[in-house]
Amino acid sequence: MERPKFPDETIRRMPLYLRCLNRLIILGKDTLTSKELSEFLGVKPTKIRKDFSYFGDFGTRGVGYDLNNLVREIRNILNLDQEWKIAVAGISNVGCTILDHLEFNQPGFQITHAFDQDPELIGDTVRGVTVHDVTEIENQLSGEGIQLGLLAVPAIEARGVADSLVDAGVKGIINLAPIFIDLPEDVEVVQMDLSSELGRLVYHLTNS
Amino acid sequence: MERPKFPDETIRRMPLYLRCLNRLIILGKDTLTSKELSEFLGVKPTKIRKDFSYFGDFGTRGVGYDLNNLVREIRNILNLDQEWKIAVAGISNVGCTILDHLEFNQPGFQITHAFDQDPELIGDTVRGVTVHDVTEIENQLSGEGIQLGLLAVPAIEARGVADSLVDAGVKGIINLAPIFIDLPEDVEVVQMDLSSELGRLVYHLTNS
Repeated sequence: MERPKFPDETIRRMPLYLRCLNRLIILGKDTLTSKELSEFLGVKPTKIRKDFSYFGDFGTRGVGYDLNNLVREIRNILNLDQEWKIAVAGISNVGCTILDHLEFNQPGFQITHAFDQDPELIGDTVRGVTVHDVTEIENQLSGEGIQLGLLAVPAIEARGVADSLVDAGVKGIINLAPIFIDLPEDVEVVQMDLSSELGRLVYHLTNS
Repeated sequence: MERPKFPDETIRRMPLYLRCLNRLIILGKDTLTSKELSEFLGVKPTKIRKDFSYFGDFGTRGVGYDLNNLVREIRNILNLDQEWKIAVAGISNVGCTILDHLEFNQPGFQITHAFDQDPELIGDTVRGVTVHDVTEIENQLSGEGIQLGLLAVPAIEARGVADSLVDAGVKGIINLAPIFIDLPEDVEVVQMDLSSELGRLVYHLTNS
């Protein structure tokens, strides 16, 4: 089946929908109207109906949306039916904190490798994973099929570590370091940077 | 002068350009070609030339770009000629770490207020700012003209705290909590969520 093209904003919302819908299912819900979902999700009913229509679920009049079906569809669209292994580089501060804070317990993702350059941290166990030296990235990831990397090292280290991840086969990187990294065309990079988002926010505030 | 409409991706890159250009100026540079800038910035020369053309600087053949002029233009476009005050809600973990990690020392932004609900933290000084109880948000921000808020409280508190920030006059919120918040139309919300970005990354990896 040919899939519709999803707007980027809808794709970004999907993982949050997934988390909220899973929570509702755990609470014993199985169907909810867009109005009920709106209250729980904090998203306007019109936006919910539009987003959910992309997921192939238009709801049933008077009954609402089948939550299990929505979860199945979103997992399928995002290719989360398989488990995605993640290598984290830089666990000394934000790498670790952000994972904890963001309730990183969503099915579909698993942190399997961790790296740092701080000798004090190398050998430690973080979230069940042994921390290795960043110089070990290629050795450790070789043959492991790790496609995702989370780059949380200081800006000055970011490019070298990103290159190592790519050499080790990583195809997608979340870059938390406040610096651009220039990687081969077939590697996707998502920049998560507070100053970028603040700048964008101020631009929109003063131009709307 | 009528400004061109900037692509969202260009707006996101501007604060990082600004930071890098400021660093180059401190290093004593005043003009650089797009090739030299490309090496320093980690952005392809074609993209630099396209982005910079939006900023009104097309460079001078054989000489390159005037860095001070670029910085002036970007600051002007992003409205960073004024100082933007920021209230941070939730400083116990990621709120604080992310600020440190992201080298939050960019001119244009200043954290002036901090809030938390943890009695252990209330009264402490974080980055020169006294931490107040989240219930004090409206009192403390009254008349201060704070337009930006950074929401780093746990998901379960996020909506209540966001409402307080808006009641206190905040018009733009960076939401680090992994939950949607539904605010009045005239409030801009930027969601910074790791699972959203991971989901988006996987979607693009498997659909490109």
